[in-house]
Amino acid sequence: MSKWALTYDSWKPEQQSLREALCVLGNGYFATRGAAEESSADEINYPGTYLAGGYNRLKTKISDRFIENEDLVNWPNWLCLSFRPEGGSWFSLSDVEILDYNQVLDVKKGILMRRMRFKDKKGRITLLECRRFVSASRRHLAGIRWELTPENWSGKIEIRSALDGTVSNQGVKRYRQLESQHLELLSVGSVTDDSIYLSVKTNQSHITMAQAARTKVYSGKKELKVQQRISRRAGMVTHTIKCKASKKKALRVEKMVVVFTTKDNAITEPELEAKNAIQNCVTFKEALKDHVRKWDHYWRYCDIGISGHPFAQFVLRLHIFHLVQTTSLKTIDMDAGVPARGLHGEAYRGHIFWDELFIFPFLNLRMPEVTRALLMYRYRRLPEARQAAEREGYHGAMFPWQSSSNGREETQVVHLNPKSNRWVSDNTHNQRHVNAAIAFNIWQYYQATKDIQFLSFYGAEMFLEIARFVASMTKYNPKRKRYEIHGVVGPDEFHTEYPDSKKLGLSNNAYTNVMFAWILWRAFDIMKAVGNARRDEILDNLQITKKELKLWDHISRRMFIPIQKDGIISQFEGFEKLKEFDWERYRRKYGDIQRLDRILEAEGDSPNRYKVSKQADLLMLFYLFSSEKLEEIFKRLGYKFDHESIPKNIEYYINRSSHGSTLSRIVVSWVLSRSDRKRSWELFQTALASDVADIQGGTTSEGIHLGAMSGTVDLVQRCYAGLEMRDGVLWFDPCLPDELKNLTFRLRYSGHWLKVRIEHSKLKISFNRSWSKPTKVGVKNKIYTMDEGMSREFKL
Amino acid sequence: MSKWALTYDSWKPEQQSLREALCVLGNGYFATRGAAEESSADEINYPGTYLAGGYNRLKTKISDRFIENEDLVNWPNWLCLSFRPEGGSWFSLSDVEILDYNQVLDVKKGILMRRMRFKDKKGRITLLECRRFVSASRRHLAGIRWELTPENWSGKIEIRSALDGTVSNQGVKRYRQLESQHLELLSVGSVTDDSIYLSVKTNQSHITMAQAARTKVYSGKKELKVQQRISRRAGMVTHTIKCKASKKKALRVEKMVVVFTTKDNAITEPELEAKNAIQNCVTFKEALKDHVRKWDHYWRYCDIGISGHPFAQFVLRLHIFHLVQTTSLKTIDMDAGVPARGLHGEAYRGHIFWDELFIFPFLNLRMPEVTRALLMYRYRRLPEARQAAEREGYHGAMFPWQSSSNGREETQVVHLNPKSNRWVSDNTHNQRHVNAAIAFNIWQYYQATKDIQFLSFYGAEMFLEIARFVASMTKYNPKRKRYEIHGVVGPDEFHTEYPDSKKLGLSNNAYTNVMFAWILWRAFDIMKAVGNARRDEILDNLQITKKELKLWDHISRRMFIPIQKDGIISQFEGFEKLKEFDWERYRRKYGDIQRLDRILEAEGDSPNRYKVSKQADLLMLFYLFSSEKLEEIFKRLGYKFDHESIPKNIEYYINRSSHGSTLSRIVVSWVLSRSDRKRSWELFQTALASDVADIQGGTTSEGIHLGAMSGTVDLVQRCYAGLEMRDGVLWFDPCLPDELKNLTFRLRYSGHWLKVRIEHSKLKISFNRSWSKPTKVGVKNKIYTMDEGMSREFKL
Repeated sequence: MSKWALTYDSWKPEQQSLREALCVLGNGYFATRGAAEESSADEINYPGTYLAGGYNRLKTKISDRFIENEDLVNWPNWLCLSFRPEGGSWFSLSDVEILDYNQVLDVKKGILMRRMRFKDKKGRITLLECRRFVSASRRHLAGIRWELTPENWSGKIEIRSALDGTVSNQGVKRYRQLESQHLELLSVGSVTDDSIYLSVKTNQSHITMAQAARTKVYSGKKELKVQQRISRRAGMVTHTIKCKASKKKALRVEKMVVVFTTKDNAITEPELEAKNAIQNCVTFKEALKDHVRKWDHYWRYCDIGISGHPFAQFVLRLHIFHLVQTTSLKTIDMDAGVPARGLHGEAYRGHIFWDELFIFPFLNLRMPEVTRALLMYRYRRLPEARQAAEREGYHGAMFPWQSSSNGREETQVVHLNPKSNRWVSDNTHNQRHVNAAIAFNIWQYYQATKDIQFLSFYGAEMFLEIARFVASMTKYNPKRKRYEIHGVVGPDEFHTEYPDSKKLGLSNNAYTNVMFAWILWRAFDIMKAVGNARRDEILDNLQITKKELKLWDHISRRMFIPIQKDGIISQFEGFEKLKEFDWERYRRKYGDIQRLDRILEAEGDSPNRYKVSKQADLLMLFYLFSSEKLEEIFKRLGYKFDHESIPKNIEYYINRSSHGSTLSRIVVSWVLSRSDRKRSWELFQTALASDVADIQGGTTSEGIHLGAMSGTVDLVQRCYAGLEMRDGVLWFDPCLPDELKNLTFRLRYSGHWLKVRIEHSKLKISFNRSWSKPTKVGVKNKIYTMDEGMSREFKL
Repeated sequence: MSKWALTYDSWKPEQQSLREALCVLGNGYFATRGAAEESSADEINYPGTYLAGGYNRLKTKISDRFIENEDLVNWPNWLCLSFRPEGGSWFSLSDVEILDYNQVLDVKKGILMRRMRFKDKKGRITLLECRRFVSASRRHLAGIRWELTPENWSGKIEIRSALDGTVSNQGVKRYRQLESQHLELLSVGSVTDDSIYLSVKTNQSHITMAQAARTKVYSGKKELKVQQRISRRAGMVTHTIKCKASKKKALRVEKMVVVFTTKDNAITEPELEAKNAIQNCVTFKEALKDHVRKWDHYWRYCDIGISGHPFAQFVLRLHIFHLVQTTSLKTIDMDAGVPARGLHGEAYRGHIFWDELFIFPFLNLRMPEVTRALLMYRYRRLPEARQAAEREGYHGAMFPWQSSSNGREETQVVHLNPKSNRWVSDNTHNQRHVNAAIAFNIWQYYQATKDIQFLSFYGAEMFLEIARFVASMTKYNPKRKRYEIHGVVGPDEFHTEYPDSKKLGLSNNAYTNVMFAWILWRAFDIMKAVGNARRDEILDNLQITKKELKLWDHISRRMFIPIQKDGIISQFEGFEKLKEFDWERYRRKYGDIQRLDRILEAEGDSPNRYKVSKQADLLMLFYLFSSEKLEEIFKRLGYKFDHESIPKNIEYYINRSSHGSTLSRIVVSWVLSRSDRKRSWELFQTALASDVADIQGGTTSEGIHLGAMSGTVDLVQRCYAGLEMRDGVLWFDPCLPDELKNLTFRLRYSGHWLKVRIEHSKLKISFNRSWSKPTKVGVKNKIYTMDEGMSREFKL
């Protein structure tokens, strides 16, 4: 396996959607990103209405599936490019004999290449080499280039290039019975003889998207004089070119496309901009040149090199590639969040969950500007979060579990169990811990960057409003003399209520309670960091009283955590009383039991009755905090924290998890990395395969699992390097798996640019360049002050 | 005169538009700001088409002129509020006898108050007290409150509250023959019994703006049960309320309004958001509370206190108020520039000129986040600036003189001379010096903030692209062995070409040449500041070669400056050969000769023939640079710089200026501040009066002169304090006018928060709080290192 390219050398139609999901080149992803997040109408989400909104796929679904299928309808838009011998039928993979098929996603350059040789029914053999990219450097641009070589024939051919506005959402099977038509045609037509445009509007959010495409044909350097015709039919515009193909001479077809939407800055209106832009558009070659250069720059600071395991090396890069292309520096000037499934599919309808928690650790130390922009996405939705809290009778700001365009809660209230074909009520919106993720992210971003401006202007306000919400959720239990939190759901979505209970939610989810206590404690550090004057201003703005602050302090010391006598922390209060689950029986019966919830529901049972979890819940604590940090937190809460209990808890929960979420294996691999290296490595291997092998059996084509992809990268970076930002010191405590020889990466930390190299016996840290004053690095309990130009090597 | 309020105690209808211009409360200015900048169609600006675009006034024209005139048509929108005794005619100021009239703009709180007592034809005396504001703290909100007290009558009354979408652009007389209708109605109607909405679209840029208004009537704390009716007629929606008014009992009418547009972030679509928001809207009292609190915070760091001259004190605050409300922290999350006429009128159609040059020095040292946002406005238009350069055969990026929505050049190519009623061709777009303003602003922002992140990501790219453009404009003259620049116009718009020449533009405008040489020199400092790695990346991105850099260096040392033998620097090459102008004769003949261009054109003559200037051109150099800095620049250029020549040049140009621009007096007052204190103070006084007394005779109602307003503030701050950022040191060299006792203000410099107090005999500098490492302050050639908590007093 190449270290930089994902290659498929055979043509297996059944792998098409997986290949596509991994090969989507959304790195430029245009400006349609904003549109990606809107989803439903404002009605509560009932089937049949909940996709009435404008979720759309103009954004990235850049499949050129037309080569499989003549039917362009239902397929988007700018990729449409096909050919036929004049008078024959349009090219279709199913009508020809594939002689060779080779597909390469080059993650170094951000290009998707396909090379096909095929023979049609009349014996004509043709070689078709395709390349395409969405520009990483030019916000609105994408391009496709074909080199079409008739190997044993000559003759007239027709080339057809289209923009198609009739796309609908058909990418997720179980959503198909819902409303899937979200675009309304505004206008289509020609811009010049060789270019066409199409302008559509989303039907709920009224976002206009305009595209324009220019298609030219060359032979060598010479542009061919061709016969052209532009035609419209329902919802699409097609540019047909007639020219002559000669045996063994390559025809080059170049289709350049621009996209503009209402959400773009610095425009007058999308259609006008698209038309202007296509007339001034550069050639494929020029556009590709700076696209590749941009990717080269990305790799300079985003690459993580590991030696000793080519598969892991490549998949890491594939994950970094997807992470960068989904977020990217272009996010900075957009109102965009982190969609759970990347820009690659329709699952979750583009909603924003908590995946940031797994993605920011990578971005914080490389492209903190992007983290900042993504945190601003949350900040802009603070007013809606405030209203949400108020509606539920709380104070402060309550961010939703599934957030969409204007920040309202978009978690479905029912969902379809494909196993039983029943619509089941869904209470997962009670995952209030998403607020902890946001608060934690603010703090981590600040730790990595010391960006006091952000903290002072936006971060503190968000953090304190979350703290206020957290405090208002707690209830004091005078018997225990502790604060409790009721009616929530933890990260484990298998448990949403107690068996036979009529109340929704659970009590004292340990993860939620610890995180919330941490927030109320950390709130004081935030106020200290911004300084008295600004603190007073913010408290005044938010009308936070001294009494409230006193309460926060008290809760942060007296939150209840359900710890059992044997040191096992209950995932939530009463988890220990649930039935043990017969894992063996179910594994035998069903094979894959990752989605145990669906299996049990189909049987008329419910995971709520058992000690089972879909994914790491309590274990998240060991993922987010070092044992030193956890000890501090528990000590403040007045609980004894026994380091010995960590492996016991890990063991307890691992044995009770179905790993029904791709995130789960990352977390478990992480927590085992020092105690059970073998098992940790195995889990890491499986986590790496999540998408590249589609281990959930079909979910990758519904969209990549961005959190899990990022988690594997973070595992290498933070866990294997033992990297932790603690009390203003950047700590390293490497723990390289035996399977790897070494690990190298670059970091940007608090205005410094570092290079890190880890081997089994040594660690080398070089400070290449600094924008700010010297900083502290900690290795093996010792702290070193490092500055520009300094380099240190440590024996391990 | 109050130090915080602008008061008119008499009702003079002819002053109405001036009163309005100064009282516009655009501080929140909603989100319609984005729309303020678009103006014309993309066709070249010919009369009749050039307002075909969507410039609109929903943004701020918040006049309640309805009290003058029953005709609501042609008046915007959310202010519409009127009353009548049931069955009578709607209130009109022209139908009643005004007993008292008092209007107060409270700049401390950002509230406009009006108190009117009047008697109608039936002898009914009514007291009407109005307050209104656009929220400084809530992005989308505004409110009006009426207290209506019948003094000698009781009876049924009707209250009418409307949203009016039929507004058109009628605010500038000479534009009225152009297309003035820019809004297209989408929908209107009721949201609930007491609230209405209106949704419109601009007809060129297709921006949707939706408003919703809720009107309630109270007596004391009690909301009245009223009869309500909602009706539509062409382009507007009206909410009519019937209730009873009782003698000596105040009726309170509260109209709360929300506005959303397509350009807003974090929304689904404007109409939906407006409808939701109005249903969750707070009361007037609540909204006012945090609005006033926000203004209080603004004043904490934006106020400049002077003692000894109440008029100057108030006008300074009025100017700061307008500056803050036009830019404001809300700009940070918007794609907004600095409109030359504030948000107050239609002159210049919202285009963006170079006013930033006069505005940023104030913002840089108080709200640098706002400067950064406004610089980003330019950055986003870099692609268009690149294309503009290319179209003219240059390299790099050429920003336009008048920039609009998508950054294209929008300078009119003809303009109407009201004196001759002729359309005259306009070549002022050749003011390439706007690029110098942008480059200078980038550098100044960096000096004030040390924001290396901005510089590294955006600033450097813009700066280097401008440098590249500058270099490509120069032509080497082998005879002189110097580089020249031809075909430009300087800040003085009276000169656009040589007399009897057929070529447009002038050669070697001294201001332009010096600034361009400065840019090419400073480019190397910028590259140094971002560091080698990032520098290489940027040079690679922009494909700037070593050869180019060598050329830049050479030009920066060998630019030609037209210096005469007597040390007078010609405004442009050949200025010295033009005829002297008979100022006396023209002053006698015309009185006000500020707009000499129009006078001469009407006479069939042209200012191009004379040694006259509309505004400071060469003198700009003395405004932007200290004499030390200028000496450095000239020395590098290989010219002898004689400090003695400064007053000579000043004298020479002052005597040849008509001050036809409001900016001119600021600059001249500045350059005279040390050499001719009396004249400087007089000019400062006149500059202060620019808008508050409308010294240009009617231009204030077409929009305030934001650059000039800001210039007066900057004059006090930078000139009187002798404040300069030079080589990483913050220098003070106070020179307080005799007319002032002292001067106090706060600054934020490079992560430090300072308080400065200047008296005639001493200067006190206190460092209150610091976010970054100690910094250097210079007083009287000595440099002091200052840090948090330190305070120093200097004898002067």
